[in-house]
Amino acid sequence: MKYCSECAHPVEYIVPDGDNRERATCTQCGTIHYTNPRIIAGTLPLFEDKVMLCRRAIEPRKGYWTLPAGFMENGETLEEGAQRETLEETGVEVAIGQLLASISVPHISQVHIFFEAQMQSAEHAASTSESLEVKLFSWNEIPWEEIAFPTVKKTLRFYQEDMLAGHIQTRILDIQPQERLKVGD
Amino acid sequence: MKYCSECAHPVEYIVPDGDNRERATCTQCGTIHYTNPRIIAGTLPLFEDKVMLCRRAIEPRKGYWTLPAGFMENGETLEEGAQRETLEETGVEVAIGQLLASISVPHISQVHIFFEAQMQSAEHAASTSESLEVKLFSWNEIPWEEIAFPTVKKTLRFYQEDMLAGHIQTRILDIQPQERLKVGD
Repeated sequence: MKYCSECAHPVEYIVPDGDNRERATCTQCGTIHYTNPRIIAGTLPLFEDKVMLCRRAIEPRKGYWTLPAGFMENGETLEEGAQRETLEETGVEVAIGQLLASISVPHISQVHIFFEAQMQSAEHAASTSESLEVKLFSWNEIPWEEIAFPTVKKTLRFYQEDMLAGHIQTRILDIQPQERLKVGD
Repeated sequence: MKYCSECAHPVEYIVPDGDNRERATCTQCGTIHYTNPRIIAGTLPLFEDKVMLCRRAIEPRKGYWTLPAGFMENGETLEEGAQRETLEETGVEVAIGQLLASISVPHISQVHIFFEAQMQSAEHAASTSESLEVKLFSWNEIPWEEIAFPTVKKTLRFYQEDMLAGHIQTRILDIQPQERLKVGD
């Protein structure tokens, strides 16, 4: 941020009174411009014993498989955001179930939140503007080496473990920067 | 937002190609300025059979009691944000426990997240720059009529119910606008 979005004056990075961090501050109109972490909301969509993944049509990680997820929008709830992203990326309406994972990714200032979700039928789009391909996978067919993001891989892995253990848990996790380099693990 | 924060040109609110919502868009440099919900991270701090509340020194709801919580900052995890806010508002270092509540508040584009937290001792600040007063309450002493926000009241109420039932749960909730008007309920 170089200019004040309220008055177009150049901003300065200073610590405001009573604060302890530098903020983009306008010395003309006094506006302090805060930036905060963003939420990615998504689902793990299930139909019978299969999970739906989509192959990304856009960067980053174009061509890799992911769970449907994207930036939560103003004015919606977490569940609404997860539902909307699932519809946009797969063409499927889902019923939102329990919270599976809340994963902080501090080096990119994001929190990724995934819900279990039930598909009402096995029908889905073949592709969408955001997905090259949408597909239902048996758990033993999941392309683990081609999963787009560590948050998605962890959410899938924990779900698989929990299914085998017979008890689906809510996981609160962090992803550290070094894990970003091991996306294919 | 009136001006582009990158080049100071006036922004226009238009739907970008491939999008379905109006965004503040710069027709000079092409930057699209997204705004997204913000996260409030906080704790329910416990010492033995008591819970720590703080009386707000700042608006909104100055003078009302709340759990320590505030805006999550870039570069931190949810747990780090909750811990930092607790320290700032009460002078207490806590150990973060399980996730208690994730509450979407869509009319103000926020998500409020509270963790159970253990205090290492009963010591806390008498007051801080953000709290007029900090106090440990027995559950039967909680000033229910003077709780600052519905998200805080719900988190406390559910925790009390869960304690009595002997099983602490993670709650995924929404707060709708009409509930904002009933803060004292």
